[in-house]
Amino acid sequence: MKFKVAVLGATGMVGQKFVQLLENHPWFEISSLAASERRVGKIYGEEVNWIVSANVPDCVRDMEMVAMDPKSVDADIVFSALPSSVAKEVEPKFAEAGFVVASNASTYRMVEDVPLVVPEVNPEHLELVEVQKRNRGWDGFIVTNPNCTTIMLVITLKPLVELGLRSVRVASMQALSGAGYPGVPSMAIMDNVIPYISGEEEKVEEEPLKLLGKFDGNRIVPAELKVSASCHRVPVTDGHTEAVWAEFDRNVEVEDVVNAFTGLKSLDLPTSPEKVIVVRNEVDRPQPRLDRDEGKGMSVVVGRIRKDEWGIKYIVMGHNTVRGAAGASILNAELMVKKGMI
Amino acid sequence: MKFKVAVLGATGMVGQKFVQLLENHPWFEISSLAASERRVGKIYGEEVNWIVSANVPDCVRDMEMVAMDPKSVDADIVFSALPSSVAKEVEPKFAEAGFVVASNASTYRMVEDVPLVVPEVNPEHLELVEVQKRNRGWDGFIVTNPNCTTIMLVITLKPLVELGLRSVRVASMQALSGAGYPGVPSMAIMDNVIPYISGEEEKVEEEPLKLLGKFDGNRIVPAELKVSASCHRVPVTDGHTEAVWAEFDRNVEVEDVVNAFTGLKSLDLPTSPEKVIVVRNEVDRPQPRLDRDEGKGMSVVVGRIRKDEWGIKYIVMGHNTVRGAAGASILNAELMVKKGMI
Amino acid sequence: MKFKVAVLGATGMVGQKFVQLLENHPWFEISSLAASERRVGKIYGEEVNWIVSANVPDCVRDMEMVAMDPKSVDADIVFSALPSSVAKEVEPKFAEAGFVVASNASTYRMVEDVPLVVPEVNPEHLELVEVQKRNRGWDGFIVTNPNCTTIMLVITLKPLVELGLRSVRVASMQALSGAGYPGVPSMAIMDNVIPYISGEEEKVEEEPLKLLGKFDGNRIVPAELKVSASCHRVPVTDGHTEAVWAEFDRNVEVEDVVNAFTGLKSLDLPTSPEKVIVVRNEVDRPQPRLDRDEGKGMSVVVGRIRKDEWGIKYIVMGHNTVRGAAGASILNAELMVKKGMI
Amino acid sequence: MKFKVAVLGATGMVGQKFVQLLENHPWFEISSLAASERRVGKIYGEEVNWIVSANVPDCVRDMEMVAMDPKSVDADIVFSALPSSVAKEVEPKFAEAGFVVASNASTYRMVEDVPLVVPEVNPEHLELVEVQKRNRGWDGFIVTNPNCTTIMLVITLKPLVELGLRSVRVASMQALSGAGYPGVPSMAIMDNVIPYISGEEEKVEEEPLKLLGKFDGNRIVPAELKVSASCHRVPVTDGHTEAVWAEFDRNVEVEDVVNAFTGLKSLDLPTSPEKVIVVRNEVDRPQPRLDRDEGKGMSVVVGRIRKDEWGIKYIVMGHNTVRGAAGASILNAELMVKKGMI
Repeated sequence: MKFKVAVLGATGMVGQKFVQLLENHPWFEISSLAASERRVGKIYGEEVNWIVSANVPDCVRDMEMVAMDPKSVDADIVFSALPSSVAKEVEPKFAEAGFVVASNASTYRMVEDVPLVVPEVNPEHLELVEVQKRNRGWDGFIVTNPNCTTIMLVITLKPLVELGLRSVRVASMQALSGAGYPGVPSMAIMDNVIPYISGEEEKVEEEPLKLLGKFDGNRIVPAELKVSASCHRVPVTDGHTEAVWAEFDRNVEVEDVVNAFTGLKSLDLPTSPEKVIVVRNEVDRPQPRLDRDEGKGMSVVVGRIRKDEWGIKYIVMGHNTVRGAAGASILNAELMVKKGMI
Repeated sequence: MKFKVAVLGATGMVGQKFVQLLENHPWFEISSLAASERRVGKIYGEEVNWIVSANVPDCVRDMEMVAMDPKSVDADIVFSALPSSVAKEVEPKFAEAGFVVASNASTYRMVEDVPLVVPEVNPEHLELVEVQKRNRGWDGFIVTNPNCTTIMLVITLKPLVELGLRSVRVASMQALSGAGYPGVPSMAIMDNVIPYISGEEEKVEEEPLKLLGKFDGNRIVPAELKVSASCHRVPVTDGHTEAVWAEFDRNVEVEDVVNAFTGLKSLDLPTSPEKVIVVRNEVDRPQPRLDRDEGKGMSVVVGRIRKDEWGIKYIVMGHNTVRGAAGASILNAELMVKKGMI
Repeated sequence: MKFKVAVLGATGMVGQKFVQLLENHPWFEISSLAASERRVGKIYGEEVNWIVSANVPDCVRDMEMVAMDPKSVDADIVFSALPSSVAKEVEPKFAEAGFVVASNASTYRMVEDVPLVVPEVNPEHLELVEVQKRNRGWDGFIVTNPNCTTIMLVITLKPLVELGLRSVRVASMQALSGAGYPGVPSMAIMDNVIPYISGEEEKVEEEPLKLLGKFDGNRIVPAELKVSASCHRVPVTDGHTEAVWAEFDRNVEVEDVVNAFTGLKSLDLPTSPEKVIVVRNEVDRPQPRLDRDEGKGMSVVVGRIRKDEWGIKYIVMGHNTVRGAAGASILNAELMVKKGMI
Repeated sequence: MKFKVAVLGATGMVGQKFVQLLENHPWFEISSLAASERRVGKIYGEEVNWIVSANVPDCVRDMEMVAMDPKSVDADIVFSALPSSVAKEVEPKFAEAGFVVASNASTYRMVEDVPLVVPEVNPEHLELVEVQKRNRGWDGFIVTNPNCTTIMLVITLKPLVELGLRSVRVASMQALSGAGYPGVPSMAIMDNVIPYISGEEEKVEEEPLKLLGKFDGNRIVPAELKVSASCHRVPVTDGHTEAVWAEFDRNVEVEDVVNAFTGLKSLDLPTSPEKVIVVRNEVDRPQPRLDRDEGKGMSVVVGRIRKDEWGIKYIVMGHNTVRGAAGASILNAELMVKKGMI
């Protein structure tokens, strides 16, 4: 018996990725695809501009899209691939109506009673759900995952916390798929770098503090950590690459960091990769085109770990629409199933 | 009456750029093109795989290439576009034979009695030439310009020194032309980022210390500054983009930095751009495709100057084969002419 | 004394190209920039998302945009960079009000009393203007230039007519700028080819027949020629490349074609290139990145002329937004000035 | 019990693709990897610059490479990914020594007693093997597959033969991987099209005639067909796109062609795709990035089938290193096993 799941915003880039990753999922089965008003009643396979592979999966091709309304949706879990402005209104309606909302939208990530979770980083933050339900009197609840750039980063920061991590600078080289579809015009990015992504640096600087924070029974006490980000768009389809400088409150050697990274445990969940962090020893890896599908897109790949004057610098790369978006929400949902929350 | 100039390594990517920039130069005239043994006696226009524009300039098309040997070259100034391994032997031979060698090769940049110069940054380092000539008993001498990534960076660091600059972290997104020709295979970089460039980070970390150092009459006393670099190749033809974090020994505001950047004086030389640093106010500039030809490729363009926890971060971009290579050597030669050294 | 010219649709990709090419034009001076209603009254330099070079030209930066209405525009010539749906209504209003409209829009190209002109191909078609004015009772008139892909093609077909040209097959590899801005999404074209451009093949198949047709005093009698096109978008910023198969009613040698191409005369107009067709002998030219700026973007570059079973095949390449759009309209206007029509 | 297979030229681009496709093959098992002299004795996983996926497959990672010499190779079948100049000498040595050589090299494709085979097109040509063995007195034999561009084309031509196919013009837009590694320099192809590939047009014009010819017991009588090709390199990693014009000796409708294409039977072999030709109805397909993995890279995808003045035009696209190279040789070997030739 599989759980029924719905995808909100099913025709966008991340929505398509949800559909793709949920095809043949061992625990979940797509029961509803919800879209904006003008698409309600239309057939998914005919309406979607499917661009994540050659063919719309059979299981949804003939599915009629429904309204983004709790009454129209038949599901145990609702995955939200909505733009943040739409998510603002829609997600609470579903939570209030008793649905579990696993959201990739940024809207509620930093709200005090909403868990912002990466299963391998802060699974215990899911307990905040009780606070949320109590505060709001909802039957359901909202759980969020971080921004795509934050996810790759924070998965590598987690094992560094015990080494005395104090500050982080990160320069990202982000893929085009992160901007959705149509997203970045080709004339804007061909033979070019765009050294700006609206709202991105703020997210990358704030979200890790909550993710690495401690749940005190009522709220998340943010980690004492400073992050400074510089975010850039490069002509790559998928896979965010990040150059990270980490500083510590003690001397840390490259070997310590390698051990910390490889020591991060994988979870026993369907979407978990065998290795959460893959450390590569080649001088020129990770590279998005070669490494983005590692662990079916759920591993993050690290390389070039080296020491400088102030600490350690390294490169981390991960698949931004899998580990960084749809896969992140699905992994959160799997964890909630395992914990008996669904 | 123009000075006669030769280009050593005239068929490579940087060699071609020298030829292109020297066409119609008001002070210089190409008198010799020197190439490796197998090309000696061949016609430049027939031998070169010209890729920096549609057509080989008329002034050199029918020129017969000569050996990289002082006896074969008729010139006042020798521009070196040689690979460092070749430069090692060839450049001293020319200096010994009385030529002024303006070199883009990395070989002698960090050698104690060789000036490493960017005219707007440390013109006074040219005085080291006297030490070099005395040490070596040469009639001529070697003057070098920095690595392409260093140049963009150091031009922005110079005005920050007076603000109390203490440390720099820089993540570069470097263009393909920086690797020469054939350089990076297309299958290696299409839809990809390569987070490694051999030897690059070391150069970017060391060269600024010499460039910002002080000449004490005998040698350059390196600046007290620490630089940590992470260098990456991206699918861009020309123009290196760099994300810089600068820290100071005092509080520095964005406005101070803007003023410092715009206050950097241009020189009255033929290849000098009107503005050495162009500061852009748009949220998403500089961009290599739009901004690399600013000041005919000799300006560096800065944007996104913002404050963080520890100092100031900004983006700098410049044309790597113009300001970052051939144009840099030519500007050095112009400065030497103006100072009466040639 | 320069002629005053206006640009309709001044903020789009082709509009920007008009502005760029008209800066410092010896005969024309931009007097009005007309834009859609929501932009009227706004300052060009602040409104435009300028992407054809680093900086909005000084001459228009502070210009206030006006409505696309004959009363708001002060000009002798109106250049239209409008989308065809908008051009439909706007261009006749200007012609009726006495303006000379030089249009790049497709709307009126195939209309019987509207000249479709490339100056080097069919200058005599401008006489159709008298028919147009008579038919419509207008003081002004509309003159159009062909589709960008047609222009490169037809310039090479013209000299082949005398060799007995009978049929043409053409496969185009078209640049991104041809789709305007935002145009093609980067996620659609990165690492990809899109073998379809809406409406393009029809234009490339029909327009040459009119262009190579004969004006009989009342109308253009289409050329007896068949064209079959297959149009494709490739990841190139500027420059359309076309593979052409030409068949003749007699035996034709490569040499005949080379002579025909190089024999096409340039016109004595400000925007005319020195050579209308540049024939290259290298095995691998023309290439868009190297050759698109030939003749300041107004030459078309041809190569790989070879014989097959049925005739001659060759490659032609030209700058699609210069020779293929804005430059084409401007050249038409220059010709009309020379002919005393303005 | 699996057949033992060797790969000659195992470290190149096509060699890697052989290794990748042979991993977990139900009938074949890699027993030897042969490489050039300087690599003999070295470990594959350490020597290869693996670029076709993230990781060298486990089954070959620790394999020691052997010499390209029949005595050093232990195998039933030898797959050749050699450059044609090397294949010339090496392949006959293996055939003479009794090996079945399934070759992707061009050297022997057009030799009279060597079969050039695509299993779905001309399986009966394998009978030519008997002639070859008799002629040469060899125990083994050489069987070849066509050039990558030819394969996509000829698979679509085969079903058109019965409709009276007479002539073909084809413009290819070929992927970078077709040039091997390092192959095309990035500076040559970024933001560019190269309208030339050495030797390619000749192959595409000649090979189909042999492939569609008839075996008369002694030799292949070439098909009466004329092909004219124009071959171009575009910035795409994998997947050759081809625009085809086909002419017939009778009137042919789009529907006839669709039926012919979809009627081409798949074979019951491990590497056979479910559909040999996938016909897509969208206006803008096939596209290399979306469609190249169709049928695990073994289907060819066709679209835009339309009628013109003289016949039918359409687009065909296929994965050049799978269906167009390594997969083609493997499919040939599978067919030979099924026919009891191995």
